[in-house]
Amino acid sequence: MSSLTYKDAGVDIDRADRAKVRIREAVRSTFGAQVLQDIGGFGGIYTLEGKSPHGVLVASIDSVGTKVKLAFMTGIHNTVGIDLVAHCVNDILVCGAKPLFFLDYLGLGAVDGDRVAQIVEGLAEGCRREGCALIGGETAVLADLYSPAEYDLVGCIVGWAGKEDLPDQARVRPGDVIVGLASNGLHTNGYTLVRKLLFEQAGYKPDTHLDELGTTVAEELLRTHRSYRKPIEAIAGKVPIHAMAHITGGGMTDNIPRSLPEGAVAEIRLGSWTIPPVFSLIQKLGQVDQDEMYRVFNMGIGYIVVVPSDKAEQTVALAQESEVEAWQMGHISSSTDAEPTVTYVS
Amino acid sequence: MSSLTYKDAGVDIDRADRAKVRIREAVRSTFGAQVLQDIGGFGGIYTLEGKSPHGVLVASIDSVGTKVKLAFMTGIHNTVGIDLVAHCVNDILVCGAKPLFFLDYLGLGAVDGDRVAQIVEGLAEGCRREGCALIGGETAVLADLYSPAEYDLVGCIVGWAGKEDLPDQARVRPGDVIVGLASNGLHTNGYTLVRKLLFEQAGYKPDTHLDELGTTVAEELLRTHRSYRKPIEAIAGKVPIHAMAHITGGGMTDNIPRSLPEGAVAEIRLGSWTIPPVFSLIQKLGQVDQDEMYRVFNMGIGYIVVVPSDKAEQTVALAQESEVEAWQMGHISSSTDAEPTVTYVS
Repeated sequence: MSSLTYKDAGVDIDRADRAKVRIREAVRSTFGAQVLQDIGGFGGIYTLEGKSPHGVLVASIDSVGTKVKLAFMTGIHNTVGIDLVAHCVNDILVCGAKPLFFLDYLGLGAVDGDRVAQIVEGLAEGCRREGCALIGGETAVLADLYSPAEYDLVGCIVGWAGKEDLPDQARVRPGDVIVGLASNGLHTNGYTLVRKLLFEQAGYKPDTHLDELGTTVAEELLRTHRSYRKPIEAIAGKVPIHAMAHITGGGMTDNIPRSLPEGAVAEIRLGSWTIPPVFSLIQKLGQVDQDEMYRVFNMGIGYIVVVPSDKAEQTVALAQESEVEAWQMGHISSSTDAEPTVTYVS
Repeated sequence: MSSLTYKDAGVDIDRADRAKVRIREAVRSTFGAQVLQDIGGFGGIYTLEGKSPHGVLVASIDSVGTKVKLAFMTGIHNTVGIDLVAHCVNDILVCGAKPLFFLDYLGLGAVDGDRVAQIVEGLAEGCRREGCALIGGETAVLADLYSPAEYDLVGCIVGWAGKEDLPDQARVRPGDVIVGLASNGLHTNGYTLVRKLLFEQAGYKPDTHLDELGTTVAEELLRTHRSYRKPIEAIAGKVPIHAMAHITGGGMTDNIPRSLPEGAVAEIRLGSWTIPPVFSLIQKLGQVDQDEMYRVFNMGIGYIVVVPSDKAEQTVALAQESEVEAWQMGHISSSTDAEPTVTYVS
């Protein structure tokens, strides 16, 4: 029997070490004075010095789903990190929190130093945009779990909220208006279905130019997940927000009720906002039911805020001043059912 | 073209919803008064009320590597979560931190409600043991990324440390003694090599009983990662700890230097501790070089503490009172090389 090293078994520790060196610069570019430890420690250390002792921590973890498959197909690996950070920022934003720090996990089939560097550069870019420190990460080479050219990218965010900013479903009242903020495309949901439809059924390639999209399939599908931190900060400074929801997997149908009290109904007026052409294309190609479309995709709305009706116009204007299109798209009514729901009204 | 639903494309949202209901009980069992949000919110909310305003947050993220493959082979899915929590707890313990909360990410090829429940029960068990709240999690069904019967399990921990408990390499002095704390087997490292050797080369099955191990291959390889929180709390209460290291991927060779100042050498006396039989078996089967063994495996030492020499005996005794075997296994010397290193002395 020949001598066996860890490299023969598919794990090349030295190559992984070289990739680590290349990502240092990107990671350090996200650090501020709150980060008390350089790269390479067993844990990332972050001080809350200067924060109110009455704040709370808000945390969330997620991946970008099979949007990474688009990165594999195109060789563009520096945008999925931006997606992931924005996705996580929006999740804690719903809880009234602003980002403190982020950690990533990259599970890989094989190490490609340049690819890892691209991925981490995307994460660092996303973190810098959000004022968030990338204080930890793990790159795990799991040759028997991931295909050689594939990976999964997971991110965990921790943010800070004042207690008065935490969600309180009791604020939601019948008559409150639902304001929808425009998405930037598919964001990070529905990619399993979209890839099947566009690549397998329709036979498109990533570089296929589609007139109805005004761009290539790859460009449309790689558009990064929008962060709503700036418009929400602008709105929250002037308007009493009653509830918020980030429209991710499950669409408006599943996500809006997560923020509503018992007995509340979110009545969404179809036609009250602009549905981007990519969703119409998907619906047409797959003959996908409308119900299914609204449970899988964001349909052009990435985030919703529920505000008093007399503040709805101002809310739309504040979002638009932050360069995010917004619409009054419905209102809250009440029902005898305990479970909060969404109904779509033509 | 037939109508296509998200289910046809490999993602069954309703099945995933049912699994979520089953895991609620396990997750809630980890909650304490600090958790301000029930399951189902966009973020987990945790209050620091009552903590000193001068503490810091310490965070780490990791997976259990290909140890999950043992779960796949055996159908035992309720131990990898215990491994993952203990691994993360040890990482922040090195920074002087105790766990506050944990979040998990489970990337799956297909949803099997019972399997997901088993995994989360393991995570919850690990969290309860550590007094850590499982405040967030994501179960992502990524049919095109993971094989149907496979998954990756990622965990992120956030802990709390007093500033005076943070690592400070300046405390380390030549003559300090390195005390090693016994591991519980392979913990979560080296599984790619071990599986290749035991299953592919030697042809063993999970239920093969090996006399030299006194148990089956599966039982040996599924032994859970030991948490060192209790012995380290006992030691830290009485002994000034100068440095610590968690022995994970990279073994003692790569992990001990992470905690040492420039110019420090960790001289490890071979033969000063008991190497469990599983490591001898691996070395023999693969004719693996000693250097390689010490860079891939923990070799029976899961955690090390560096203490003043006159406290070494007491440190060993305190670990043993916490039911963890411990040994004086070497000392710190100095070198003209800047990079801290480990040398093994026969």
